[in-house]
Amino acid sequence: MIAGVPASEVAALVRAVSPPEFDRDSILERFARARWSGITEPGDGDAGRLIAAVGAVEALELLDAGASLDDRAGGSYSAAAERWRPRLAHVDSLLHLRQAARFGARLVIPGDEEWPTGIDDLGVHAPMALWVRGVPGVLGALDRSLAIVGARAATGYGEHVTIEVASGLVDRGFAIVSGAAFGIDGAAHRAALASRGTTVAFLAGGVDRFYPSAHETLLNRIVEHGAVVSEVPCGTAPTKWRFLQRNRLIAAASRATVVIEAGWRSGSLNTAGHASQLGRPLGAVPGPVTSSASAGCHRLIREYDAVCVTSAQEMAELIDPATPSVGPASGPTPTRTRVLDALARTGRDVSRVAAISGLSLDEVRAELGLLDLDGLVTESPTGWRRATP
Amino acid sequence: MIAGVPASEVAALVRAVSPPEFDRDSILERFARARWSGITEPGDGDAGRLIAAVGAVEALELLDAGASLDDRAGGSYSAAAERWRPRLAHVDSLLHLRQAARFGARLVIPGDEEWPTGIDDLGVHAPMALWVRGVPGVLGALDRSLAIVGARAATGYGEHVTIEVASGLVDRGFAIVSGAAFGIDGAAHRAALASRGTTVAFLAGGVDRFYPSAHETLLNRIVEHGAVVSEVPCGTAPTKWRFLQRNRLIAAASRATVVIEAGWRSGSLNTAGHASQLGRPLGAVPGPVTSSASAGCHRLIREYDAVCVTSAQEMAELIDPATPSVGPASGPTPTRTRVLDALARTGRDVSRVAAISGLSLDEVRAELGLLDLDGLVTESPTGWRRATP
Repeated sequence: MIAGVPASEVAALVRAVSPPEFDRDSILERFARARWSGITEPGDGDAGRLIAAVGAVEALELLDAGASLDDRAGGSYSAAAERWRPRLAHVDSLLHLRQAARFGARLVIPGDEEWPTGIDDLGVHAPMALWVRGVPGVLGALDRSLAIVGARAATGYGEHVTIEVASGLVDRGFAIVSGAAFGIDGAAHRAALASRGTTVAFLAGGVDRFYPSAHETLLNRIVEHGAVVSEVPCGTAPTKWRFLQRNRLIAAASRATVVIEAGWRSGSLNTAGHASQLGRPLGAVPGPVTSSASAGCHRLIREYDAVCVTSAQEMAELIDPATPSVGPASGPTPTRTRVLDALARTGRDVSRVAAISGLSLDEVRAELGLLDLDGLVTESPTGWRRATP
Repeated sequence: MIAGVPASEVAALVRAVSPPEFDRDSILERFARARWSGITEPGDGDAGRLIAAVGAVEALELLDAGASLDDRAGGSYSAAAERWRPRLAHVDSLLHLRQAARFGARLVIPGDEEWPTGIDDLGVHAPMALWVRGVPGVLGALDRSLAIVGARAATGYGEHVTIEVASGLVDRGFAIVSGAAFGIDGAAHRAALASRGTTVAFLAGGVDRFYPSAHETLLNRIVEHGAVVSEVPCGTAPTKWRFLQRNRLIAAASRATVVIEAGWRSGSLNTAGHASQLGRPLGAVPGPVTSSASAGCHRLIREYDAVCVTSAQEMAELIDPATPSVGPASGPTPTRTRVLDALARTGRDVSRVAAISGLSLDEVRAELGLLDLDGLVTESPTGWRRATP
């Protein structure tokens, strides 16, 4: 018996939702993490610390037995245990596993080949497990990925820019991470799919119930060609708290975050804040200052040191700072400008050009010679003049 | 005789173009600077060094006499002297003074009450003198001024933003400095005049011939209510070199520079570069990334650390960093969010709320109490629920 359930039933269910290459010895670990993902709310640092100290299995055994966690785990967990115990009675992890199996979702835990390594930067706030629907192995593409997030109430401008840059990033081999919301998120996923790129959606609720429901078709297409991921078990409703915590997964799973349109207090600023805290590059796309949908982006640039990004190329450079494709113009020399300024259609002799340009005779002679070589001036019987193109 | 001209004629002409309070002993100095402003091209650092060493009058006497400048001024000026001598024969400073008098222009030199102190930050590249048409004393307003520059080929968006912010800055007591060009410059001057503010235009050519000629009416209005300024004498044509040097005056005379719309290689970036070199605050207004007219602004933000500014208030803060009027939202606490997430229209008891929110019984009780005080929840016979507004 494991947590009051026949071990064979647990094993069968865990197998059903595990990646094909999963370690058979880890059934207990996988089940424990599935349970922890139901018992805790996302981002529970106490649970993270406890599991780091004694492991997910032993931590649960102690909690199940009503034992004091403090002695064994070397920390103070009594307040946290009071938080976890009300859930122990309600959470039905077998139901979560059955529902996951029914929807073809996989349970991915740290150490699995599919586990996105960037997530580990969340430390004790990392998720207990991820519930994943989609193409096996696609989370590996997150090594070269960019999160594109933004306003639900996006404008035509914002959606246009999103589509442009998302397909430009796909062309450069990046996977597009987002949150499947209306507006910018949806446009980013759609553009990635349209460009036959990889796209990953992180949800605030379970992967069995797509939110928003109007994006069910979109999310089904993401499942077919990419992945839909959540840290909460199937059947879990998306709540405001879970949206905010989901944002940290978007920031951590991708290499950089870009915000395209966001109101002054947009939820996208929360994702941006997570990216910033994690030390991930953060970009924001500017827009008209007359558009409230760009106010949050300008705020990120002004107050949070976000990089002003205006194209897929500049977004790619957030991750791989390449040599800028266009350097500053070398431009004409001051002397050249002044000599050209001093010429007219009619010819002028060197001393006149010197007087007009305020340069010495020698400087004027030397520059006229160079300009002549470049075909920009001609010497005529009446003196030097600009060459007619 | 002064430079081959009867001293009385020189004195009368200098008086005609000097501020009423000018120092009568400085006639020679004023005439010397008027001549230097005709002999040199704007920004001539050698002339600046020479005059700093021996004064404008003696420097000219040496040059007139064909003497070696090197011995007397302690530096190497032979190359520079070769630049200046061709002009000595051509430049007619009396004509410049007569023309200035005819147009009601004043000759303003360092030390005059009108001399804009910010200009001195240009060091040896400061102008020899300024030729000024406009309201006496108006240059004093440059102590509290902002330069607004930008694309000649401005869009409706750029002109709209310029008008908004220029009048907002006038309302905050700032003078508006610009270059009287088409597009952003013109809009900035017009908006300042319309708001009965002070505005100053720096020209690349003489103040007797307005450029562009289509802005003659606008420039005449600026003369009436503000000032039109140039460092080159009357009769001097605007050349590309003089435009580039004029830009340094705009940057130096004002307390901060803001660029509103600029193409990728816009001349406004030159003004921005001068502001930056002078250590003046530099702002750029973002716009749609799809608009090439904003590409230069985005470049300034990305590559040259310009501050992203979106309103008159933010531009004013470039100069007077005030406490931000809107701080970051304190927002709801995580616990509050989670408890509210766990409530429904039907009542739920504390243990159910604890299980759903993943919080301890004590935490839930405490938060429900606070929410009750705020009128956000009610306790009903069936348990706690969200209050109906």
